Amino acid sequence: MTDSLDPEDWQGFRKRAHAMLDAALDRMETYREGRVWNPPEDTLKVFHAPDQKASGAEATDAALQELFSYGVGNTHPRFFGWVHGAGTPANLMADITAATLNANCGGRNHAAIELEKRLIDWCLAQFNFPKSGSGLITTGTSMATVIALKAARDHALDFESRNQGLKDLPKLTGYTSEGAHNCIARAFDLLGLGSIALRKVPIDQNGQMDTNALRAAIHDDRKAGYTPFLICATAGTVNTGSIDPLDEAGQIARAEGIWFHVDAAFAAALQFSDAHRGKLAGIEKAHSLAFDFHKWMQVNYDAGCVLIRNGDSHRRSFSDRPDYLSPMTRGLAAGNPWPVEYGPELSRGFRALKVWAQLHEFGTEELAAVVERNISQAAYLAERVRKAPELELLSYAGLNICCFRFDASGKTGQEADAMTEEIVTRLQEEGTAAPSTTRIDGKLAIRVNITNHRTQMSDIDVLVDGVLEIGRELQG
Amino acid sequence: MTDSLDPEDWQGFRKRAHAMLDAALDRMETYREGRVWNPPEDTLKVFHAPDQKASGAEATDAALQELFSYGVGNTHPRFFGWVHGAGTPANLMADITAATLNANCGGRNHAAIELEKRLIDWCLAQFNFPKSGSGLITTGTSMATVIALKAARDHALDFESRNQGLKDLPKLTGYTSEGAHNCIARAFDLLGLGSIALRKVPIDQNGQMDTNALRAAIHDDRKAGYTPFLICATAGTVNTGSIDPLDEAGQIARAEGIWFHVDAAFAAALQFSDAHRGKLAGIEKAHSLAFDFHKWMQVNYDAGCVLIRNGDSHRRSFSDRPDYLSPMTRGLAAGNPWPVEYGPELSRGFRALKVWAQLHEFGTEELAAVVERNISQAAYLAERVRKAPELELLSYAGLNICCFRFDASGKTGQEADAMTEEIVTRLQEEGTAAPSTTRIDGKLAIRVNITNHRTQMSDIDVLVDGVLEIGRELQG
Ligand SMILES: Cc1ncc(COP(=O)(O)O)c(C=O)c1O
Ligand SMILES: Cc1ncc(COP(=O)(O)O)c(C=O)c1O
Repeated sequence: MTDSLDPEDWQGFRKRAHAMLDAALDRMETYREGRVWNPPEDTLKVFHAPDQKASGAEATDAALQELFSYGVGNTHPRFFGWVHGAGTPANLMADITAATLNANCGGRNHAAIELEKRLIDWCLAQFNFPKSGSGLITTGTSMATVIALKAARDHALDFESRNQGLKDLPKLTGYTSEGAHNCIARAFDLLGLGSIALRKVPIDQNGQMDTNALRAAIHDDRKAGYTPFLICATAGTVNTGSIDPLDEAGQIARAEGIWFHVDAAFAAALQFSDAHRGKLAGIEKAHSLAFDFHKWMQVNYDAGCVLIRNGDSHRRSFSDRPDYLSPMTRGLAAGNPWPVEYGPELSRGFRALKVWAQLHEFGTEELAAVVERNISQAAYLAERVRKAPELELLSYAGLNICCFRFDASGKTGQEADAMTEEIVTRLQEEGTAAPSTTRIDGKLAIRVNITNHRTQMSDIDVLVDGVLEIGRELQG
Repeated sequence: MTDSLDPEDWQGFRKRAHAMLDAALDRMETYREGRVWNPPEDTLKVFHAPDQKASGAEATDAALQELFSYGVGNTHPRFFGWVHGAGTPANLMADITAATLNANCGGRNHAAIELEKRLIDWCLAQFNFPKSGSGLITTGTSMATVIALKAARDHALDFESRNQGLKDLPKLTGYTSEGAHNCIARAFDLLGLGSIALRKVPIDQNGQMDTNALRAAIHDDRKAGYTPFLICATAGTVNTGSIDPLDEAGQIARAEGIWFHVDAAFAAALQFSDAHRGKLAGIEKAHSLAFDFHKWMQVNYDAGCVLIRNGDSHRRSFSDRPDYLSPMTRGLAAGNPWPVEYGPELSRGFRALKVWAQLHEFGTEELAAVVERNISQAAYLAERVRKAPELELLSYAGLNICCFRFDASGKTGQEADAMTEEIVTRLQEEGTAAPSTTRIDGKLAIRVNITNHRTQMSDIDVLVDGVLEIGRELQG
């Protein structure tokens, strides 16, 4: 046993680290090859539980390398499930740097915090938010939503909610569409508002929030004695990629004097594209915006962002500095305000670095090119589905998501769903491609989401051909 | 522009990555040397905001390397501020692996999720929690506390809070000590309970919760019509390292039929040490436990943990699986339950890996040795303070924290505080050492927290000598 956990032999450690890096790079070079997904069963044999005794470097590295091919599949060009970004090899440079710094970004006066602040300023500018806005790099859109909605809740209740709790204050209600992600209802639950206080406004044929129904719902709630406080619009719904009428929703929020939040988890990336930016018109009206870097912007997991128009409100909703965190004007305790004043976390890793590195290295143009390619790929997929008599298009909103299924004629709803489930499962099990499933108008759908910089047109063909082949086989 | 964000020239990329790694290792080899803390001003000149145009690899890596020496200081053996772990170079292996996998650990059936589950099982066993317990790797103790307290809140309200919100349900009150970390009150605020619903029970001379006062507070609240639902004990308070009488607090919670939570943010590491484990007796009674790997266990930032005795309750408090996340028995959507059913995040990085790697590589024995060394170092510091006529010991609870100040005789309280602040700031500015400050019985104190595997006895001497030198100079 030594006098620290540092290597005793730095030369040996250097060899170790370079060997690990080479193994990692070997794996990265083959991201495009082989099966999309490998089930975890086999690899986990090498994972022994920690023990009292040290297992040492060699056994640890061997186990780590054993994992390399057992990811969820999102580094493969034919991963189309849920909404996963693919990450970039280049982003490893930031991870190495972050590990070297090992910074705690909850507070204190150091470069990592400063970098995050500047990154937030840059993000504010990207979305035409005022300079007096604020924000935070988060683990994802779910946490960004919690932060935004807490700021909205506390703002609506004159910040009395922070001390008093919600019990004796007005009953708040919020509004989002039926197509919204459940992270919004989950935030209502977490924040003590209750998920039914989030009213689900119907969507139209295009998957967009029905703004007349929105107005009516607010009106009804006011009449019933509730206090409407929030409209959550979605830019890029999880099922179909639909974009709510942001500008109109923002106008309604202003007319009602309530907070306007936008969930742009993946579609925020459209802002980088000259061709598609227009789709987000109105987003600059938002009081808060939640989105991810780890989705369409291809930053490694995890990294999301919350931006808040009124930086003072944001800080007033979270700041609380006890003696042991008290601010100073010089030394390490300077650099105020601290990130802990803008979110629920104290200790926080240096997520901002990989975000900065990705944006800096590639520029928004190259990231926009990924977005544009993925959108054409989804259009191509929708076209192939439309043209194939055995396939039924269930939704395509012109963005990066396309939902369809194999011919269900002559089948009950249940039979059709079972077939869809079987097709998707087999594609995954065979390792050919990995779409996910969802329900569109009650029908189970093969859901193809393309937020993947590695995907090529030919990958779309492999997917469609695979669906056809399995479908025909099942059809008998 | 290429057809993906992957390197066009893998050989060149390999060179780039190895060069970055070598630079990182050069920095790690000098962790013990030089100044503890470098203010951020100089280095940030190299950080240009992202642009439309790609800045490319070279400019990005140059900026990243520029950062290496501008951390918060916690990698240095004389960082004694707040409660920061120092991290280990070995942990970089896990970070490289995690970047290679780029896994989203919110759900799906893949090895990363399985590994996290097994790690949680191992943690449950370490703290003598039942196998039917559950848990999650979090970004830190603050988030772990939010999760634990939400489970407690919803359990107390028969889970009606999730849908209905708190407004029409019984008014809950919780109990913790005056020495508790403010992350608990912040969780009350976030969860809509309000921070005043967390009653602050007085502490005794040893910094421990006064259990008679606790009983009385619960009694009074019941009489006043509140619904007590939670006792939060602290194992290792942030100011003094005091440990509440866990066993007794647990008994009171049982007698009252309420939830018993323990915040063991850093002191959880005592569980690994044969010499110190006894200090945590009673922790196994907890309904929930929050602690950090990034503090005394020296895992790289960020990594904390929540453990919950009743796994069903935990899941019932968070689970909500809409169509697009619906579970299956085969394929990628198998492997249920998913982590998203146990916390507020959907997308989550693979934090569990670096935790596993650290525990596996070093074993609990080598981590315990760090804890034991740090405790002796704090004892030595307390001894040096006691022996020095110019120093005044303000608190030392026999753990890893010692608070003191330079001679205040003949000074007003304000003058003494100003001197303490000046001494701490100068030590930081000079780069000699980095303690922080806090208040003990109203007096500003030099707070020395030792959760640092690099610290040697000689570093304690450097600190004390530094305080004496600056103090004498200020004394004139
Ligand atoms: C529209 C939308 N909102 C929110 C989320 C949740 O984001 P995260 O997984 O980063 O928490 C998602 C994830 O797919 C999403 O698509
Ligand atoms: C006793 C205690 N509880 C909670 C926390 C908060 O932990 P984290 O910073 O990981 O959120 C700390 C941090 O220092 C602490 O010392």
